[in-house]
Amino acid sequence: MKINKFLSIMCFEWCIVVERNNKSKYEILVDLAKRRGIFWPAYEIYGGVAGFYDFGPVGLSIKNNIINEWRYHLIHSVDVNVLEIETPIITPRIVLKASGHEDHFTDPITECKSCGRVYRADHLIEEAINKKVEGLSMEELWKIIHEHNIRCPECGGELTKPKPALLLFKTEIGPYKGTKAYLRPETAQGMFINFKNLLNIARNKLPLGIAQIGRVGRNEISPRQGLLRLREFTIMELEFFFDPEKSYEEVMNILEKRKELRNERLNILTAKDKLEGKEETQTYTTIELIEENIVTNPWMAYWMAIGNKFLREIGIPINKIRFVEKLPEEKAHYSEQTFDQEVFTEKYGWFEVAGYSYRTTYDLRRHIEYSKADLTFFKRYEKPKKVKKKKIAPNPAKIKEIAGEKFPSVMKALSEMDKEHLLSELENNGYVIIQDVKIPESPFYVKEEEVLVHGEKIIPHVVEPSFGLERILYVVLENSLHITSDQKIVLKLPYRVAPYMVAVFPLVTGTKPEHVKMINLAKKIKEILISNRITVYYDEEGSIGKRYVRADEIGIPLAITVDYQSIEDNTVTIRYRDTREQKRIHIGEIIKEILSHFK
Amino acid sequence: MKINKFLSIMCFEWCIVVERNNKSKYEILVDLAKRRGIFWPAYEIYGGVAGFYDFGPVGLSIKNNIINEWRYHLIHSVDVNVLEIETPIITPRIVLKASGHEDHFTDPITECKSCGRVYRADHLIEEAINKKVEGLSMEELWKIIHEHNIRCPECGGELTKPKPALLLFKTEIGPYKGTKAYLRPETAQGMFINFKNLLNIARNKLPLGIAQIGRVGRNEISPRQGLLRLREFTIMELEFFFDPEKSYEEVMNILEKRKELRNERLNILTAKDKLEGKEETQTYTTIELIEENIVTNPWMAYWMAIGNKFLREIGIPINKIRFVEKLPEEKAHYSEQTFDQEVFTEKYGWFEVAGYSYRTTYDLRRHIEYSKADLTFFKRYEKPKKVKKKKIAPNPAKIKEIAGEKFPSVMKALSEMDKEHLLSELENNGYVIIQDVKIPESPFYVKEEEVLVHGEKIIPHVVEPSFGLERILYVVLENSLHITSDQKIVLKLPYRVAPYMVAVFPLVTGTKPEHVKMINLAKKIKEILISNRITVYYDEEGSIGKRYVRADEIGIPLAITVDYQSIEDNTVTIRYRDTREQKRIHIGEIIKEILSHFK
Repeated sequence: MKINKFLSIMCFEWCIVVERNNKSKYEILVDLAKRRGIFWPAYEIYGGVAGFYDFGPVGLSIKNNIINEWRYHLIHSVDVNVLEIETPIITPRIVLKASGHEDHFTDPITECKSCGRVYRADHLIEEAINKKVEGLSMEELWKIIHEHNIRCPECGGELTKPKPALLLFKTEIGPYKGTKAYLRPETAQGMFINFKNLLNIARNKLPLGIAQIGRVGRNEISPRQGLLRLREFTIMELEFFFDPEKSYEEVMNILEKRKELRNERLNILTAKDKLEGKEETQTYTTIELIEENIVTNPWMAYWMAIGNKFLREIGIPINKIRFVEKLPEEKAHYSEQTFDQEVFTEKYGWFEVAGYSYRTTYDLRRHIEYSKADLTFFKRYEKPKKVKKKKIAPNPAKIKEIAGEKFPSVMKALSEMDKEHLLSELENNGYVIIQDVKIPESPFYVKEEEVLVHGEKIIPHVVEPSFGLERILYVVLENSLHITSDQKIVLKLPYRVAPYMVAVFPLVTGTKPEHVKMINLAKKIKEILISNRITVYYDEEGSIGKRYVRADEIGIPLAITVDYQSIEDNTVTIRYRDTREQKRIHIGEIIKEILSHFK
Repeated sequence: MKINKFLSIMCFEWCIVVERNNKSKYEILVDLAKRRGIFWPAYEIYGGVAGFYDFGPVGLSIKNNIINEWRYHLIHSVDVNVLEIETPIITPRIVLKASGHEDHFTDPITECKSCGRVYRADHLIEEAINKKVEGLSMEELWKIIHEHNIRCPECGGELTKPKPALLLFKTEIGPYKGTKAYLRPETAQGMFINFKNLLNIARNKLPLGIAQIGRVGRNEISPRQGLLRLREFTIMELEFFFDPEKSYEEVMNILEKRKELRNERLNILTAKDKLEGKEETQTYTTIELIEENIVTNPWMAYWMAIGNKFLREIGIPINKIRFVEKLPEEKAHYSEQTFDQEVFTEKYGWFEVAGYSYRTTYDLRRHIEYSKADLTFFKRYEKPKKVKKKKIAPNPAKIKEIAGEKFPSVMKALSEMDKEHLLSELENNGYVIIQDVKIPESPFYVKEEEVLVHGEKIIPHVVEPSFGLERILYVVLENSLHITSDQKIVLKLPYRVAPYMVAVFPLVTGTKPEHVKMINLAKKIKEILISNRITVYYDEEGSIGKRYVRADEIGIPLAITVDYQSIEDNTVTIRYRDTREQKRIHIGEIIKEILSHFK
């Protein structure tokens, strides 16, 4: 690179420019992100802590806009009822015991006997022998370590037998003699345990979606992929509750009305194809996913189509989106079928940004078991059904003969006893023991009656789309990054995702009367826009060219410039980021012009 | 209450209505909140955990709207540069050691020797002897417990001597052999440790505000005030960095331009007045707070005025807002002056919803000390100053004579040594010890030079306004709660805070052709509004009267009804929550009409 060296001596600005040609998008973004307030590693002044990031004003604004788009695409504009809630991060142990996380949410670790460093065993093996080992048992991993004589990559020391490490952040509720708790690793459980509350609020109707956006903690062993593998991050999740007997009909009714969603094209790599060694995706429409049984429940196809559309609309090209089905050993403990939604990144290749899991009745069932609460849905029959039902009543005189002085307490216990249980005890054993008194069938009257049953309690099934916000932020940034022919950065973010809607500049700043007028007019415009809830980036430093560059770098789609003509005739120029075109409009038209681009 | 009993037999609906008369606003709200999805205690199916709440779709939407109003009033529309950031909740121990929280963020606890229950000692004493004891030492509290023979309120057992309990939630980063960490008790520290990053992004200009909105954890001993004292909650904070030498001039310049802010009226109870036993507030304008030295820095007055306006605009009447200065023993360890902003509540009386602290240089100074990072601001002089400066250089030949074979390492150490430090060592002691070699003054050349100094490094001062979101949610709800003359609930929320902008109803629902048309038109209107990013509450269940009641109960300000006339001439009625008036408008005008109320 002789030319570069030569140029770098000549001109500092050029030197930055030419270097850009040699940098990956990742490197350009990481540099831009720190310099312009998008993101950077947290706790830098204390040496940093892996897995934690800070977000600056630009990054946070883009994040919040992605959240709003997610709300629009997955809550407000869907064809079903979705209610968004917010539940705590700190979670009592029982909840994550019931959900299975305390037992299953682990990764295998191995420790160097010599230097004490701790590694994620499966990753270490994968790096050493270049083979996927996800889902193998501790014994199997240990065997591989032995066979291949895998050692500490830092000091060459011997490794210990892998053991599971719990990835939940532990804490205690109460500052003294507290009770055990964890930080939630997903927002989902807050929705499952509130299912009945939300069902009431939704006036007992299925299907019902419950959504939540919020922080979660996953105590990763040694996260090394920057923004793409964090220990604390934001998740956008939706638990969709439905009656599986009705799901085909319900989804077909929706797709009948929404042709564009029915024909949404998704790139799919099935578990079957993976097992056959295929790596290429097949394209299916939503309806094909259902009709060809690629998905095990039609609602999976519905939400995958919605998620596909969502990513497309925030700027990810369709050829960089794919859905990969997980193999049985790769799935989480609660899932019957899982598709990862992946986006192609320059640095890491295909990378998971969302997951779609068919959690069936798993979570509700577990919480019913652990809490004894009724988390069922009363499914009303179209017509009440006539059902034969046995009724049972004791004959007190005969009971008294058998129970003797225990008669009052035995009668009390009998009256409080579940009648179904009493019947089945008598039927199975021929007697029942109450207060240590053995009572045969004879002292009971049993009669069969026909009763009308209006419905039955069912545990709804659940499909869950779940999105990692920071990963989406990264792929949106990478896909919006453009380097112009004159080597400038332009973030061509979709308008709705851009950190500010518009930039406002006075053309020249100074103390001459016309310049003061320019500044005052520009500030007035800024104030009016802000009071109309339009987000504004105001900048009066340096040449107008440099200010356009600064606005382009963080993806501001529109720029209003107040110039000499403005203070004469109340017109301004508006510049469009993507075309660099400018046109002159009257001040009274600014708001309308801006808003027309955010429809 | 004979009449009530009589009525309750007659009619279930009436019975609810009449009961409302006897209920406090708090009770009405708590009932409404659970029933309509505003908030409810978390983890109910597992018996609940004190200090944690869930928020339903209505509560969450109101919360998010309050956040947006806060952003508008404290970030976007202020007269200074404020940048919002987002930093992690999980915080390495060193950060909260440096901030002083690990040492000072405690409450005194006492334990019952007989039943083992744990209490907050100061609260227990306050309840027992009805006297404020905040800020007293453990010894002093112990003395009072003894003197008044205060015992366990549950079992009458003896109490232990009070000891401090740390209110930080503890955790560890890394699932195995992790490092100690806490959940942040405030978002502030994430802003302090990022001061230099944000100063760079703001191109090195003061004053500079850094804002953050996010979850925090405070491991309270036994929180008992529902939504008003949570262990996990959302804070909206702003750290405002400035040069104290310029603050008077800067604030006066702003108030010169913003007369309405200059004349904002604040109800104040000063520490001085409190000490004199006064309980009534005095009203001051912003400028009076500064000119009469009620605040120790003018920026305190600026932010208090902004915060006063913010609360007024989200529906708190001015006579229910006051600022109470904390006494020296009540202030946090970092604060030179603190005002609590309190709102009057029916249930708890005056209750703190925000605090304004003059944190001076405390936090930056501590982080400089602990991290050794440079968190200063380079304050450029208007003109460079000529300063006499001593320069020092060693005479190698003489050093060699003294250091002997240690000469190379001594010279290296000398070259790396801070020259100011070297000079002061020699000046104070007459010698310096390098690598165990004692070197007198003689082997050094010292000369005095005149140099131009362009500025100096200063540690900016900080004023912090900090708001508790859930408390604000509660006071907004309480103040918006109205019971109509016909005993119905109407939440008269300010439009911008309302959970949905508009309700849409088909007048009659059924299967007749005209009813199907009505439903289809209503759904079409809903879809168009949603695609225009207007939040819609759609409801087709029950009579139109009941649906208006349901919309009023959660404070939806506008309701569009599609009726028989609509399907003939494309007009609809729009109903206004606060007046119950209705008017007929054309479908094409709906969006404009709605938006005109959200200006």
